[in-house]
Amino acid sequence: MTEKIKILFANDAFYLAFQNSDIGAMTNLWANRDDISCIHPGWNHLSGRDLVLTSWEEILSSKNTPNFEVRGASVNIYKNTAIVICYEVFEKICLVATNTFITENNEWRIIHHQSSASPPPEIIDDTEAIKTLQ
Amino acid sequence: MTEKIKILFANDAFYLAFQNSDIGAMTNLWANRDDISCIHPGWNHLSGRDLVLTSWEEILSSKNTPNFEVRGASVNIYKNTAIVICYEVFEKICLVATNTFITENNEWRIIHHQSSASPPPEIIDDTEAIKTLQ
Repeated sequence: MTEKIKILFANDAFYLAFQNSDIGAMTNLWANRDDISCIHPGWNHLSGRDLVLTSWEEILSSKNTPNFEVRGASVNIYKNTAIVICYEVFEKICLVATNTFITENNEWRIIHHQSSASPPPEIIDDTEAIKTLQ
Repeated sequence: MTEKIKILFANDAFYLAFQNSDIGAMTNLWANRDDISCIHPGWNHLSGRDLVLTSWEEILSSKNTPNFEVRGASVNIYKNTAIVICYEVFEKICLVATNTFITENNEWRIIHHQSSASPPPEIIDDTEAIKTLQ
């Protein structure tokens, strides 16, 4: 399995935890260190494991977790760090997200997430994700 | 000079290039590789050196470059990669930005920028920036 595939799996796992409201999985997907950060759309930034994970507990415990699809994920790797850009396509809005990963105990774990309002992607290109996951 | 100070200087240089409409400086601040990316507020993501730098040429050549202040910059370093989070405070709106840097020829250069609408920062904390720049 190439590193790109591993990173796309980690990115998929992040969104599965989100969509399944699985706070245990979400907690495990974040790197186990305090210098993690998160910027939810329309929020101030959150720094530190406590603030980041508490925000996800709040979001995942909401009864109104909206349905969305993740589209167009692309990966760039810079030695020990990887950046995934993808679109979170909801019924009425679209967000563009950056998810940054590092390796920790040979697993790719998230250190930073920023998601913000975006036009729908002009070209939905899932080619890379589809090719690598086959 | 510690790595954090070098990164804060690189972040300051990025915003000086922006505020001075200096496309030459802006071009030099981005890593000289094609796997760079940029998400301007309300835009789709841009991948690749051509698209990213063309977008900055468009922005910097506008006669209506707005005034803004950069506040609350904080840095986290992950070996060869660094993430700076800061606020871009305009007269009427506030953006929160993530600027990701890697080392290239012993310089910290940008590989990714995402800026998006944010409430004003609850606590403007320039302590780290002020302390490190003194």
